[in-house]
Amino acid sequence: MPKMYRAGIDLGGTNIKAGIIDDDQNILAQASVPTRVERDYTEIIRDMAGLVQKLMEELSITSDELAGVGIGSPGLVDAANGGIRYSNNFNWNDIPLVEEMHNYFQCDIRVSNDANCAALGEVKAGAARDCDNAILLTLGTGVGGGIIIDGKIFEGGHAGGAELGHTVMIADGEQCTCGRRGCVEAYVSASALIRDAKRAAGENAESLMNELCKGDLNNMNGKIPFDAAWEGDQVALAVVKNYQRYLGEAIANYVNIFRPDVVLISGGVCNQGDQLTEPLEEYLAALCFGGEKGFVPPVRCASLGNNAGLIGAANLIII
Amino acid sequence: MPKMYRAGIDLGGTNIKAGIIDDDQNILAQASVPTRVERDYTEIIRDMAGLVQKLMEELSITSDELAGVGIGSPGLVDAANGGIRYSNNFNWNDIPLVEEMHNYFQCDIRVSNDANCAALGEVKAGAARDCDNAILLTLGTGVGGGIIIDGKIFEGGHAGGAELGHTVMIADGEQCTCGRRGCVEAYVSASALIRDAKRAAGENAESLMNELCKGDLNNMNGKIPFDAAWEGDQVALAVVKNYQRYLGEAIANYVNIFRPDVVLISGGVCNQGDQLTEPLEEYLAALCFGGEKGFVPPVRCASLGNNAGLIGAANLIII
Repeated sequence: MPKMYRAGIDLGGTNIKAGIIDDDQNILAQASVPTRVERDYTEIIRDMAGLVQKLMEELSITSDELAGVGIGSPGLVDAANGGIRYSNNFNWNDIPLVEEMHNYFQCDIRVSNDANCAALGEVKAGAARDCDNAILLTLGTGVGGGIIIDGKIFEGGHAGGAELGHTVMIADGEQCTCGRRGCVEAYVSASALIRDAKRAAGENAESLMNELCKGDLNNMNGKIPFDAAWEGDQVALAVVKNYQRYLGEAIANYVNIFRPDVVLISGGVCNQGDQLTEPLEEYLAALCFGGEKGFVPPVRCASLGNNAGLIGAANLIII
Repeated sequence: MPKMYRAGIDLGGTNIKAGIIDDDQNILAQASVPTRVERDYTEIIRDMAGLVQKLMEELSITSDELAGVGIGSPGLVDAANGGIRYSNNFNWNDIPLVEEMHNYFQCDIRVSNDANCAALGEVKAGAARDCDNAILLTLGTGVGGGIIIDGKIFEGGHAGGAELGHTVMIADGEQCTCGRRGCVEAYVSASALIRDAKRAAGENAESLMNELCKGDLNNMNGKIPFDAAWEGDQVALAVVKNYQRYLGEAIANYVNIFRPDVVLISGGVCNQGDQLTEPLEEYLAALCFGGEKGFVPPVRCASLGNNAGLIGAANLIII
């Protein structure tokens, strides 16, 4: 009997999510538990395994029917050796994740960076499922990058590759969390958008953004500048246009290197839909090397939401 | 009898160079003719073919013994379809290069961008011959980029990829030849170094660079700022340090994406040897994502000089 089931685990700073998929990419069952990152890594990994075992029982899947377990992890992942070199949020250093998981499962176990897994999920079952080559940018607290070449995750030659968010777009510019200044993450993350919106609102008392924040800029979020801009607030519109321009410059850089079939973005800003992506496509047409002589890919919003990482992680296992 | 000979053609704006290599990467014979770019493309291609035919006669190689002809071309190359989409220097638009060459040769014929070929040459026979994954930056009038993954050229998913020089490192910065502002090429090409040295010398009459230019800044070249800096000229030293910092930032970007085994640079600045590469390695150690937790590659100068493109082009043919 062919092993047709795969487990995917999305290891997050808040929750561990796990799911089991079939060979048509359907999630048959999923569950989650709080991560509680302060615990010892062996306890976190025990919970990851326990979630998968629970789902297998629920679906009456035997270990013979499970092709493997894929894990999407934050941090600097050494996919080739199945380890996590470093994770700031988890305070992890050189954690032998795959080896530890083998205490619970004898099947194939693989790990990759969470943004890589989200990209793979979207290519296998989401907004890029017609594509072999794709770039995904996850625009959240930070900026993750996933690169899919010929249907597979591109990890780079050694651990620490595919960090698209940590390429500088304005050398010596805004401080980035990685220690460097001017990274893409410092301009196009949700945190960067919120920082810029706070600055602009603070300097312009008349901006509608102040009202939407109920007079306290600590209430600023990534939606308010867009809401205010679409209401005609010029201060907010400048923030939004600036954000889109940064995003356009960053994506043009990746296109000039990878020329993917499609560029995907994910995160809360995707709620803006075409109002976000259409200007980005105009930037690409104007900025990409060779103009119309080169291939200029479309920009789409990711479609799997929170399930992208889980489905992508399961697809680390090739059946 | 195995076809063990391959021809490589390096198509340049000034000269067409061709050579024939054996399976140990030795150049058995080479020759060149002026390109005269103003001519019709069919005449240029006829000369390319004629050079190879002449070398084959010289070496008494029959068409049965020639495995193929590889061509390194400037411009936006469509390797998959064997065409040149666009070349500014040649005033070429959609030239069916491989098809036209098939009028002269029935063997395998392939084309790639000249910087890609130089990178492949260095991996097969030069400074990266112990490596499967490498990045090459050619620092000349412009900045070419070559990316080798698992021993093969990475072209990108569609035509126009691997343009490492056309990624912005300072959005809205210096004007680039590609129309965009702030590209890596606008900061680390020999032209950019000369521009910055001219500016600094023009603003600082006491700088030794003015004397080395014999009082006419039109005599500035890429060697003078280094010569003056090593003589203790503080103005020149600032130009050199700034140039190295830009190069360090650019290379750190590529490392954060590709994590290659090695980064190579080529061009006249390589005459500076360790004085150029050692500070670059210090920048990488400081700037690469994850610091020592990730793999930080060495930076080396390319070693094949003008033959890199020819050897790399021949290696487009797999034997």
